[in-house]
Amino acid sequence: MAGLRIIPLGGLGEVGKNMTVYEYGDDMVVVDAGLAFPRDEQLGVDLVLPDFSFLSDNAERVRAVLLTHGHEDHVGGLPYLLRRVPIGHIWGTKLTLALVQSKLDEHGLLRAAELHEADPEGDPVDVGPFRLEWVRMAHSIPDTAAIVLETPGGRVVHTGDYKIDHTPVDGMRTDVGRLADIGNRGVDLLVGDSTNAERPGVTPSERVVGEAFRQLIPVRTGRIFVSSFASNVHRMQQAIDVAAEVDRKVAVIGRSMRKTLNISRNLGYIKIPDAMLLKPHELEEYPRGKTLVLCSGSQGEPLSALTRIAYNDHPATSVERGDTVIISAKPIPGNELRVHDTINGLARLGAEVLHEENAVVHASGHANAEELRTVLSLLRPRCVMPVHGEYRMQAAHARLAEDAGVDPRNIVIAENGSVVELTDDRIAIVDQVQSGVTFVDGLGVGDVRDVAIRDRQRLSEDGVVIIVATLAASNGGAVSPPELIVRGVGDAQPIIDELRAEADNTLRDCLAQNITEIKLLQEHIHDNVGQVLYDRTGRRPMILPVIVEV
Amino acid sequence: MAGLRIIPLGGLGEVGKNMTVYEYGDDMVVVDAGLAFPRDEQLGVDLVLPDFSFLSDNAERVRAVLLTHGHEDHVGGLPYLLRRVPIGHIWGTKLTLALVQSKLDEHGLLRAAELHEADPEGDPVDVGPFRLEWVRMAHSIPDTAAIVLETPGGRVVHTGDYKIDHTPVDGMRTDVGRLADIGNRGVDLLVGDSTNAERPGVTPSERVVGEAFRQLIPVRTGRIFVSSFASNVHRMQQAIDVAAEVDRKVAVIGRSMRKTLNISRNLGYIKIPDAMLLKPHELEEYPRGKTLVLCSGSQGEPLSALTRIAYNDHPATSVERGDTVIISAKPIPGNELRVHDTINGLARLGAEVLHEENAVVHASGHANAEELRTVLSLLRPRCVMPVHGEYRMQAAHARLAEDAGVDPRNIVIAENGSVVELTDDRIAIVDQVQSGVTFVDGLGVGDVRDVAIRDRQRLSEDGVVIIVATLAASNGGAVSPPELIVRGVGDAQPIIDELRAEADNTLRDCLAQNITEIKLLQEHIHDNVGQVLYDRTGRRPMILPVIVEV
Repeated sequence: MAGLRIIPLGGLGEVGKNMTVYEYGDDMVVVDAGLAFPRDEQLGVDLVLPDFSFLSDNAERVRAVLLTHGHEDHVGGLPYLLRRVPIGHIWGTKLTLALVQSKLDEHGLLRAAELHEADPEGDPVDVGPFRLEWVRMAHSIPDTAAIVLETPGGRVVHTGDYKIDHTPVDGMRTDVGRLADIGNRGVDLLVGDSTNAERPGVTPSERVVGEAFRQLIPVRTGRIFVSSFASNVHRMQQAIDVAAEVDRKVAVIGRSMRKTLNISRNLGYIKIPDAMLLKPHELEEYPRGKTLVLCSGSQGEPLSALTRIAYNDHPATSVERGDTVIISAKPIPGNELRVHDTINGLARLGAEVLHEENAVVHASGHANAEELRTVLSLLRPRCVMPVHGEYRMQAAHARLAEDAGVDPRNIVIAENGSVVELTDDRIAIVDQVQSGVTFVDGLGVGDVRDVAIRDRQRLSEDGVVIIVATLAASNGGAVSPPELIVRGVGDAQPIIDELRAEADNTLRDCLAQNITEIKLLQEHIHDNVGQVLYDRTGRRPMILPVIVEV
Repeated sequence: MAGLRIIPLGGLGEVGKNMTVYEYGDDMVVVDAGLAFPRDEQLGVDLVLPDFSFLSDNAERVRAVLLTHGHEDHVGGLPYLLRRVPIGHIWGTKLTLALVQSKLDEHGLLRAAELHEADPEGDPVDVGPFRLEWVRMAHSIPDTAAIVLETPGGRVVHTGDYKIDHTPVDGMRTDVGRLADIGNRGVDLLVGDSTNAERPGVTPSERVVGEAFRQLIPVRTGRIFVSSFASNVHRMQQAIDVAAEVDRKVAVIGRSMRKTLNISRNLGYIKIPDAMLLKPHELEEYPRGKTLVLCSGSQGEPLSALTRIAYNDHPATSVERGDTVIISAKPIPGNELRVHDTINGLARLGAEVLHEENAVVHASGHANAEELRTVLSLLRPRCVMPVHGEYRMQAAHARLAEDAGVDPRNIVIAENGSVVELTDDRIAIVDQVQSGVTFVDGLGVGDVRDVAIRDRQRLSEDGVVIIVATLAASNGGAVSPPELIVRGVGDAQPIIDELRAEADNTLRDCLAQNITEIKLLQEHIHDNVGQVLYDRTGRRPMILPVIVEV
C-alpha cells in the first residue's frame, strides 16, 4: 500500500502562503492556508494565493483544514480556498479560530465550514485516518501550535512557525517536554520551520522587547507611537503595560490593529482597563506626554496609519517635535525602502524614530540555528523535510539536520507541488502536482466580498486596464494626460474616455494635495478608475497604474 | 561682505549622488560629483544625477572639482558634469584620479580637464580663495581623504565618507592626529558623513573580514567565489592573500572588477603575483579546490557575473555542489530581493552561500555613532552640517553633535539646493537654488559615449516607448503579443510594428532559454528594442518595459 504523502502547495522556496497537504489512502487534510503579499514587480496584484487546483480536483477527499496559528501567511487564504473547495471542517486553537471566524464573517462565509477548537492540553482527535495532536509553541502571535499527524504510514511533526522562548510574555512556553515525549515515541518525519536556519545562536525572547520599552518609554516626554504587526498581541500588551506604569492613556489606530485588539481582548489574550483606552479623536484632550498610540503600518504599507502620519496626512493624529515613534518590527524583504521612507518622513516632522537598526525594539518569532538543533535533538526524526522559507533557508536547515545525525538520504528539500512519499524504508519525491500562484486584485475597491480572484481564466473574462501617467520629477507636475491600454474590457470609446478623465482628475487632485509619492498615486488611481469601471460595467479588470517620472 | 556659502546639490536626504558646492566671493569649488542608481519605481532609468543647472548658470565661477574618494556615488557623475559645465581642474588622491582618468577616457573626455594629484602628506594648495588640505581617512576604498577648505570666511572640514579604522588593511589609518591638530587650529564648520549615525558603537575594522576569510577559505574543498564591490580593493587583497596561503589560483570575472583590479595593481594598491592570476577560461584546467574567483554582482544586479552564475548562465564558469560563494557586501536598500534571489539560485545549484546575515564577511565603510563622537571631540567645530545620508541619519548626527556640546542653533540640517551661509556669528539657510535629479538612460545600448542624458527638455525631443508584455505566472509563457505606447517618436506604423515584433521575438527567445525573471526580461527587451529604434531613427527614447504576470 502507498505510504503517507506530503504535498506542499505553498511556502517552499518563498516566504508566505504556507499550505501543505497530507494524503493517506483516500483521505487528505490541509495544514494551513496562507497568502503572500506581492512583490513590487507583480504590478496590479493585491494578494498572492497558492494554486488551489489540486485540492479542487480532489475536493471530496479533503477532510479538514488544520491551522497552526493565526498569521495571514497561514490563514489568510482560507476564505478564497473555501469559496473554491468545499471543506466542511476547520481545526485550530482558540485565538486562531477567533481570527478566522472574523475573517470568514467579512467574506460572508461563516456557514461555509464548522470550526473545531483544538486543545494543546487535550486528548488526540481523529480526522479520517489521521490522529492529531496540537503542541504548544511560542511565536509572535499567541496560541501557536505544532501539529502531530499520526497514521499507519508514520508519525509526522509539522512544526508550523515557532521559536523556543523560555520566557514568553504569556508564560505559554514551547512545550519542550511534550516534544521530548513525542521524540521518545518515535518521529518518522519532521516538517520544520526553516525561516531563521541561517542565523546562528538563539532568537531573543519576546520579553527583551518589553525590557526595551521599559527603558525607552518612561524617559520620553512627548507622545509615543508604537507600530507593529496587528497580530503581535504580546508586543501590544508589553507596550500597554509600560504605558500603565507611567500613567499614559492608549489609543489604537488602524483597522486591523483595532480588530485584533478587540478579538484578543474579548478572549482574554490582552488585558487593558477600559479607563486607559482612548478613542483616536480623544487624543487631543490629553497632554502629549500622557498618551501612547498603537498603530499599524510598521511595513510602510501605503495608506496605513503610520504611513499617513509620516506624510502628515492622518485625520486623527500627527507627530510633533519631541514625540517618539517606535517601529517594533523588521521590514519584510522588499519593504525596506518603504519603511525607510516612513522613518524619514517621521524624522522630518521632528520625531525621534526607534527601529530595529538603532534599538532593541523587535524580536523575531522564528527559531535560529541552535533552537532548530534543540528540536532535532528532542525529536530525533528519521526523516526531515525543511519547509517555510526560501531555498537557502531550507538548505541551511537540511545541513543542521545532517549535523544532527539524520541520514542525508532521508532529508528532502521539496518544492511547491512536489509529492513527497514517506514509506518504512525511504522518503522520496515521487510525483508533481499542479502548483503555482493565484493573484487577488481589487481589495482597494469596495467591499471585500466583491474581490476579484484572478487566474488565467478570469483574466481573459475581465480584462486589463493599464494607465500610464507621466510626471515631471523636478516639480512633480503632470506632463501630459494619462494614456490607457485597455484589453478585453470592450473597446467602447466613451468608457475609455471616461476612465482617462478619471485618471487625469485623480492625478491632478493628488498633486494639488501635494501627494507625489508614486505608491500613493498608484493606489489612488487604481481605486478611482476601478470604481468608475465597476459602476459602468459591473466588471473588475486588473488595473495597473504605471507612473513614469521624466 | 557675504560669508562662506555651502550649497549641497546631492546626497542630502538620500543615499548617493553626493555633490556640494562651496562659494566664497566670486569663486566656487565643487566637492565630489556622484551619481545614484535608480529605485525600482523609477522605470526606464539607468542612472540618477544631480541637477547641474546651478553650476551651469555659474560656470565661469567654478574653479575646480575636489574629490574625496573614487566611489561611484562621489565621482560617477563627473563625465556628465564635464559635458555640461566646462571645469578645467580636478583634484584628488592618486587612486581616485586613476579611476577618474579611466572613466573620462571611456567617455572620450580625457582632455576636458586637467587632473591634479592631491597629497594628504603634502602642503596646502590654493585654488582661488580656497586653501585646501587633504586628510587621510579610512574607508572601503583606498586613498580616501577628508578635505579642509580654508577661506577668510572660515575653516571647514568636509569629511567625505569615512570610518575610524585603527587597523586598516593598507595601514593607512584615519589621521586622527591631524584631525586633532586641525581641531586645535579651530574649526568653524564640520560637514560630516552621517550614513551610520543611527548605529551605536564602532564599525568593525576591515581586517575582521580578512580574519573571517582566513577561517572560512582553508577548510573548503570546492571552488570559492568572492563577490564584493569592484572598488573594494582591500577586500580583494584579503581574499587574494588567503588564496595564496592555501595555494589557490585566482580568476577575476566581471568587467568593472577586472578594470579596478588592473588600475589598482598598476599603482601598487593591490599585490598579486602574475603566476597566481588565471584568465576565466583557464579555470577549468585546475581542480575546483585550487581556484578562487573574484566576481562582481554582490548587489544582485541583472546581467552581472554573480547573477548570471546564479542562473547557471555564465559563459566562463559555474557553481557546483561543494562550492562556496562569499557575498562580501551588504545589500543597498532596495536591492534586498535581488540579492536574496541570487543567494537562492546559488543554493539551488548546490553552493554554500555565506553572506552578511550568516557570517562576518562584510564590514561597513562608514563611521558609527561612537566614531562620529570621536571626530566631534577631535575637531570641536563651532557649527555642524550633517550630510551624506537620509534625513533620519542627518537627524541622528545632529543629535550627536548636540550631545557633544555644539550649540543647537549652530547645527543645520540642510536639503539639496539649500544655500547655507556661514558667518562669524551664525549659520543659516539663506536661499534656495535649483536642485533635483537628472536621469540617464541607455547604458544598456551601445557605447557609453552615446548615452542619453535625459531631462525634461530632452524627453520631449526623444520621446517614450512603453512596452507592455503579459506572461502567464503559472508556466511563464507569453499570453499575447506585447503592446506598445509610443509618444513623441513619430507615429510611423512600420517602425512601431517592427518594435513590437522585436519585443515579441526577444520575449520568446528569453522564454525559450528559460529566462523568466522579470528584471532580466526587462533588460533584454529594453536593450533589443532600443537598438532597433536607434538603428532606424538615430534616436534614443526612454524605453520602459512593463511585464505583467497574470
